[in-house]
Amino acid sequence: MQLLKDRIRRDGIVKEGNVLKVDSFLNHQMDIALLNEIGREFRRRFADKDITKILTIEASGIGIACITAQYFNVPVVFAKKAQSINIDGEVYSSKIESFTHKKVYDVIVSRRFLNSEDRVLIIDDFLANGCALLGLLEIVESAGAKTEGIGIVIEKGFQDGGEKIRRQGIALESLAIVDAMDAEKGTVVFRGE
Amino acid sequence: MQLLKDRIRRDGIVKEGNVLKVDSFLNHQMDIALLNEIGREFRRRFADKDITKILTIEASGIGIACITAQYFNVPVVFAKKAQSINIDGEVYSSKIESFTHKKVYDVIVSRRFLNSEDRVLIIDDFLANGCALLGLLEIVESAGAKTEGIGIVIEKGFQDGGEKIRRQGIALESLAIVDAMDAEKGTVVFRGE
Repeated sequence: MQLLKDRIRRDGIVKEGNVLKVDSFLNHQMDIALLNEIGREFRRRFADKDITKILTIEASGIGIACITAQYFNVPVVFAKKAQSINIDGEVYSSKIESFTHKKVYDVIVSRRFLNSEDRVLIIDDFLANGCALLGLLEIVESAGAKTEGIGIVIEKGFQDGGEKIRRQGIALESLAIVDAMDAEKGTVVFRGE
Repeated sequence: MQLLKDRIRRDGIVKEGNVLKVDSFLNHQMDIALLNEIGREFRRRFADKDITKILTIEASGIGIACITAQYFNVPVVFAKKAQSINIDGEVYSSKIESFTHKKVYDVIVSRRFLNSEDRVLIIDDFLANGCALLGLLEIVESAGAKTEGIGIVIEKGFQDGGEKIRRQGIALESLAIVDAMDAEKGTVVFRGE
């Protein structure tokens, strides 16, 4: 998605350790016009899918998922990150390891909001090692629902999350795949360039 | 807002301890069509305000803020909850006490996304004791920006957050104010009824 790549080049900040900061337009401050273009593009890429629900994970996926949901006319469910909670029988849960925060936490979704009739589109802002996504896939599976596809705004193509997901045969669409970054020069190389 | 009150009556669940669960349409699963009506209503109520930015707090405020922002054509900034983070000079921060989770945490907003030119509309899903809102107001003040108004979806009118805010002379609009709840009967009394 050229508009997104241009925006990443213009406003993204490359930092040491393969960190790409896009907090001025995507995941701290959010450019709603851009999110609408992103939602429209997800609809185009999943035009043939009959989606009943969009699933994301708090916090930064929520805005993107809500705007995107307008193009699919479906509700959004966001998985909650829970620490030291009493996981009861009322939720689907999965353990996720966060490399950024160096801890393991549970993500939960109420059983009332996912069932075996659901055809789910998973939406998130970033895909790197794929841990969060694998947790969401597990939750969809626990519900007996079907994952119709995964829409990611920015994939770090030099990490293995994307490959792990695609190997499972799941339709994964990333609007920008970053294959390399250079913090010193502040440059980004996108896949296909 | 009658549509919202009707929805709370139909799908809200009243629990012991003055808990109102609206997670089937507002803050776990989100009905995007309803959020659009909420956004439209906030625009109507703040029609005379020249807003430059919508500020909310993760996680459940984000979806409402993003949909609402479409009616104001402004970006959304969400304050992040941070625990044991190194608060550096790059952020505005405020301490918030959560009664639900019984802990104190920092909320932070990058200095890059709020400045003295900003006229801010604060949006959140719930207002009870007002701690989160007071934290956001402090952040806006730290930035030298102006809070033009606060838009809340559901206010618990029997707690004192609303009064604390209104006493400061801030334009606070709550789309539904719950004055009483009965967990046994499952009933809700809205202000003005």
